[in-house]
Amino acid sequence: MQARSTADRAARAALSAVVEPANRKVVARVYATGAEATWRAISRRDPHLDTDGVLARRAEGVDGAALLQHAAGLGIRFVCPSDAEWPAGFATMPDTLDAGTDSVPPPFGLWVRGNGSLAACEPRAIAVVGSRAASPYGRHVAGDIAADLAARGWIVVSGAAYGIDAAAHRGCLAMGGVTVAVLACGLDMDYPRSHSELLARIAQDGVVVSELAPGMQPMRSRFIARNRLIAALTSGTVVVEAARRSGALSTAHWAVKLGREVMAVPGPVTSEQSSGCHEWIRNRGAVLVTDADEVADTAGRLGPDAAPLAVGEERPLDRYSPDVRHVYERMPARAVTTVPDLARESGYPPPFVEQSLRELAAGGLVLAVLDGWVRVPGAA
Amino acid sequence: MQARSTADRAARAALSAVVEPANRKVVARVYATGAEATWRAISRRDPHLDTDGVLARRAEGVDGAALLQHAAGLGIRFVCPSDAEWPAGFATMPDTLDAGTDSVPPPFGLWVRGNGSLAACEPRAIAVVGSRAASPYGRHVAGDIAADLAARGWIVVSGAAYGIDAAAHRGCLAMGGVTVAVLACGLDMDYPRSHSELLARIAQDGVVVSELAPGMQPMRSRFIARNRLIAALTSGTVVVEAARRSGALSTAHWAVKLGREVMAVPGPVTSEQSSGCHEWIRNRGAVLVTDADEVADTAGRLGPDAAPLAVGEERPLDRYSPDVRHVYERMPARAVTTVPDLARESGYPPPFVEQSLRELAAGGLVLAVLDGWVRVPGAA
Repeated sequence: MQARSTADRAARAALSAVVEPANRKVVARVYATGAEATWRAISRRDPHLDTDGVLARRAEGVDGAALLQHAAGLGIRFVCPSDAEWPAGFATMPDTLDAGTDSVPPPFGLWVRGNGSLAACEPRAIAVVGSRAASPYGRHVAGDIAADLAARGWIVVSGAAYGIDAAAHRGCLAMGGVTVAVLACGLDMDYPRSHSELLARIAQDGVVVSELAPGMQPMRSRFIARNRLIAALTSGTVVVEAARRSGALSTAHWAVKLGREVMAVPGPVTSEQSSGCHEWIRNRGAVLVTDADEVADTAGRLGPDAAPLAVGEERPLDRYSPDVRHVYERMPARAVTTVPDLARESGYPPPFVEQSLRELAAGGLVLAVLDGWVRVPGAA
Repeated sequence: MQARSTADRAARAALSAVVEPANRKVVARVYATGAEATWRAISRRDPHLDTDGVLARRAEGVDGAALLQHAAGLGIRFVCPSDAEWPAGFATMPDTLDAGTDSVPPPFGLWVRGNGSLAACEPRAIAVVGSRAASPYGRHVAGDIAADLAARGWIVVSGAAYGIDAAAHRGCLAMGGVTVAVLACGLDMDYPRSHSELLARIAQDGVVVSELAPGMQPMRSRFIARNRLIAALTSGTVVVEAARRSGALSTAHWAVKLGREVMAVPGPVTSEQSSGCHEWIRNRGAVLVTDADEVADTAGRLGPDAAPLAVGEERPLDRYSPDVRHVYERMPARAVTTVPDLARESGYPPPFVEQSLRELAAGGLVLAVLDGWVRVPGAA
């Protein structure tokens, strides 16, 4: 796919300000005719897309280009499919769009704020989610698992809500890890407001993301739709605590539809907050996990780490773990790079990157130079 | 199989006083040549059965007939294969004896004390087992599950140990249910001693059982072997709490070998006492259960309740639940029976039996008469 034109971006931005997330009809039209034509159709009140005229009314006065400019002024960028920062995990969404109501419609684009990169989710990211009304036990376990995942170089993705979500983000941050928050409102707003400081900390090394244009308010249906992005950004979802009908379980439902691993943490059978987790383990195929090792092991089964190598001659790089290989693959082909840069680029913590570089150097694949590290040409 | 001769019984009693439980070689010889010939071979120090002469030395002075008489004086009966009280669930043990070390050798016979009947386990019995060093949470859950199983007419089987076992027996008794304790020592001894009163209460409506002759002491290997009887008596085993290497898990191992359902109760991931349960759910195919309904549902899948009916003309009895049908089937063909008798015979609590009889009466299958209930001949 080629890079988006300015007009295409503006149309996508406008769509994200007018159309509710996961609107299959509109998404299908974008696939069929492109974003610009879809936006024009909506502005003209196309009866197939907009039976009651709601979209056309909302679209009045909306200007995608102006929106992009306004967002940029707030430090918010707009990432579109085929952009370098577009998450690789979203690739499975368009493919399933034809599958009818079971499909998971992709967003028109993603509004992003923060110094990290969404693309860093690609190697290994895990969703850690659960109830707002979490127990102290649940918050404790969510924090522990997130911290230990961060220490192993995983990115933790969650929804910045009270309870489990906040505990997961904080656990990850406490370990110096990278975490991603996906909101169900425009990024000009911090939601919940009391998490403003948490969101600012997340944006320091990670990103805060939404498919909703600045100005859009959180709503129940938007939370549900938002959860599909959390599932799509990650190779697996861990539900730490959820009552049987908790909205937190919708992330697990999306993960199943997207073919990602669903995991759940058990708890006391006397706790209502664990009942949804137990039900998913018992009847819905969620894998029971008790710590970050088990999460990594389970998510790795389906994740890129578990991708089988092509059969053939062994390359020097094959001797290394998938993580170390990934660090190598994120190095520029010829330029010198530094540990902090490579950490940012790869999504792994600096100590892990440094250790990986030392291992690669021992194998003759990279070389420490005066101001950083370089690949040894032809060695891999 | 025909009823055992007195000499066969005496030989089996003697074997149970001399041979360690689950000795595959000796059990295989009993199958091949009968108990009497095997006992004679051991007394004569058969080198194939007794390489170091230990069995022959132990056998000196052991007299099976005298043992049976001594036991009878203590209120202990000896139940042999093909006796009416021999548990139906043991039928799968001999069949698997040829499978080598994976087989589950049956006992020579079972020493039984109590007013209940081992045969009552046949329709539906569940093992509820776990650590001696149980947490208050584990004991609470074990008691609740056992009580609710009892209320649904299940027999609860366990090992009378401290912790989970005792909580399970007590929960069952509190609901007026029937419970079975399987010991790893002779029944002339209460083990653990501080459970004497508990064992006496178990024997009131249920039974206390051992494959070891009176006089034999508890030993670690005997506990492990004992656990196969707990598994064999039941259609499923529930592990309520067990650390990763807990001996309580050996019951689950036996249950797997016997093709019975294994269930485990989750708990806080921060509790070592639940770690074995979580491991079995995660990696060994144990079904997660949180209450008695889920236990009954899971065990029913493989149990006699789940046996498919023969395809064909619907019989009047088919309209009833398997439990009610079982109550009917336990009624004498022509004689009058009472609710207490039928409760004892069927293993269900009296209120359940009474309710079942009323349902059967509504369908014209049984009739309330002056001194009890009778089947309506030809109605089923």
